[in-house]
Amino acid sequence: MSDLEARFHDLLSQIVPVDSAAAERARARQDQLTKPPGALGALEDLSVRLAAVFGSERPTPERAAVIVCAGDHGVTDEGVSAFPASVTPAMVANFLMDTPSGPGGAAVNALSRSIGARVYVLDVGVNAALPESPRLIAAKVRSGTRNLRREAAMTREETLQAVFAGVRAAEQAIADGADLLVAGEMGIGNTTPAAAVTARLLALDPADVTGRGTGVDNAQLDHKITVIRDALARQASAPTDPLGVLADLGGLELAAMLGVMLAGARARRAVILDGFVEGAAALIAVQLQARVRDYLFPAGLCAERGHGAQLAYLGFSPLFDLSLRLGEGTGGVLAVPLFRAAAASLREMLTFQEAGLLGD
Amino acid sequence: MSDLEARFHDLLSQIVPVDSAAAERARARQDQLTKPPGALGALEDLSVRLAAVFGSERPTPERAAVIVCAGDHGVTDEGVSAFPASVTPAMVANFLMDTPSGPGGAAVNALSRSIGARVYVLDVGVNAALPESPRLIAAKVRSGTRNLRREAAMTREETLQAVFAGVRAAEQAIADGADLLVAGEMGIGNTTPAAAVTARLLALDPADVTGRGTGVDNAQLDHKITVIRDALARQASAPTDPLGVLADLGGLELAAMLGVMLAGARARRAVILDGFVEGAAALIAVQLQARVRDYLFPAGLCAERGHGAQLAYLGFSPLFDLSLRLGEGTGGVLAVPLFRAAAASLREMLTFQEAGLLGD
Repeated sequence: MSDLEARFHDLLSQIVPVDSAAAERARARQDQLTKPPGALGALEDLSVRLAAVFGSERPTPERAAVIVCAGDHGVTDEGVSAFPASVTPAMVANFLMDTPSGPGGAAVNALSRSIGARVYVLDVGVNAALPESPRLIAAKVRSGTRNLRREAAMTREETLQAVFAGVRAAEQAIADGADLLVAGEMGIGNTTPAAAVTARLLALDPADVTGRGTGVDNAQLDHKITVIRDALARQASAPTDPLGVLADLGGLELAAMLGVMLAGARARRAVILDGFVEGAAALIAVQLQARVRDYLFPAGLCAERGHGAQLAYLGFSPLFDLSLRLGEGTGGVLAVPLFRAAAASLREMLTFQEAGLLGD
Repeated sequence: MSDLEARFHDLLSQIVPVDSAAAERARARQDQLTKPPGALGALEDLSVRLAAVFGSERPTPERAAVIVCAGDHGVTDEGVSAFPASVTPAMVANFLMDTPSGPGGAAVNALSRSIGARVYVLDVGVNAALPESPRLIAAKVRSGTRNLRREAAMTREETLQAVFAGVRAAEQAIADGADLLVAGEMGIGNTTPAAAVTARLLALDPADVTGRGTGVDNAQLDHKITVIRDALARQASAPTDPLGVLADLGGLELAAMLGVMLAGARARRAVILDGFVEGAAALIAVQLQARVRDYLFPAGLCAERGHGAQLAYLGFSPLFDLSLRLGEGTGGVLAVPLFRAAAASLREMLTFQEAGLLGD
């Protein structure tokens, strides 16, 4: 076993169960707060899950960080995306650019400013030199993956290097004070590996989990499904362990997001999933270590086909459906205020007794 | 025509159309921002509507205020609610109470603090003396409505007095800097007048728009529907003008919320609807003056039966479905960060040209 493999197994073993006693106290408290029981609907369930993660019936998840994991994909040679691969470094530059409104001119920057989240940009595999920036975490493992239609996207060692780049980025965000981690991504072509991983891990037909990404047409969608079928058929004895599937069919930024999720769970923080690409990384995470599931939270339902199947497998109901299909972590960022509000209901609402409303 | 009637007609006539040219500029700008066109889904549509309201393709709706309009209902004598009418003043006292977290121990207080909205509490008809508080806008028209099963809930003059109490509260919030107004309510029994008004204005059967409110059981729900049928059958020649319907079947806090909506529209602010009771007031608003519709925005779908029919009539798609059934304005408050984020996308994202990503 390599050194990284050993460290990876340590990481998985260090993830402890969430605090079910705190969850029970939170549920009991919700039922005593000054409202009809259950009247805050899904917000109550969210608050109880946060209590379990943070080990308190009065959780205080306030600071949010979005970690945008960026990488390129050899499979873009197959024409699976509506945009050229050169858009990946261009958008990463956009994430880092100084603008009149502050750092970054992309959606994830604008939305994060509006809700008070900090943006971290992590390069684990962009196929270009990137501008130097204090806001860029430079941890390039290789300049994009291999073409997964023809060969394994990554070696197992490369995969683990990208995982630990994500672990370190999450640890940095946590050291900076983050309670809520949003796993986000940028990588032209990355809905193809995400669909391939989802099809393999959930044993679903690629046609059922492959969507239009940034906007391919019908013929391109059919071609994209063919590419994924070829990838899945490539090896008669394809790896079935989750990390092997990730190396074979995944991507560097998917591996980094897996690292964010595992580091978040180990540090007992809540990790908010954005959309379909994060969902694929989440499937790997929970198949590696079932305890991770209780640290993961859905945001909205994204428009990409296959996201619903991922959420169903994870047992999650999305918090909203705004037909987002952008990625970058934008959906996760939009969910952050609901997490703060859910926790605030537990922490700041009075019980009937505290408010003196118990009657005679 | 009474003085108040004349002022009311003036108010309706002073509401101008939203700025459709600004909306067109905003749509064009969304299509040039650094993302696939349409990738921000419903957030883009929301941003375009905000541009129309605020007359700018870079709108800045930041400060939010929730105006909780409170009143009691004579129809509670009929046993239509799971809670006794005494809960109305008790909850208003809870809204105003000093707590370790700040003013107010109810859900609307906790949620408003978490997203940075200011809470205004307006008494237009609570059937009890309320604690003095600088945070209470005292404008009691009468101590609860008459029993709408037996007689008209309010006179037309009382209705207009409550409307103008809502107008003044909205104007105060706007003077304090509010761009986003959330119309909220507290009033035990008020889903009964809301259902009656909705059934009358949309010509729907009461069974199709009557829900469980704070949680009545099946037998109580049947009885509630009977009460509403009796109210609708009370007058052979029932008023069909919207204000007449409001007086006959509505409530003081519904009238006040109508005032909030009209004053918000006149001042060209966005008014966020919470749930079913606000929806009934919104139906009256748009039937009185169709232009108001473009200043109104849905929040989530609430669990109360009949909310969907209101939204369909208004042509609105809810932003989320969290199964909320609390009222107070809580759903509207939870939507506020989405409004800020939508506007931020227009204001702060770079276009492909601005980011230098136009290619060669």
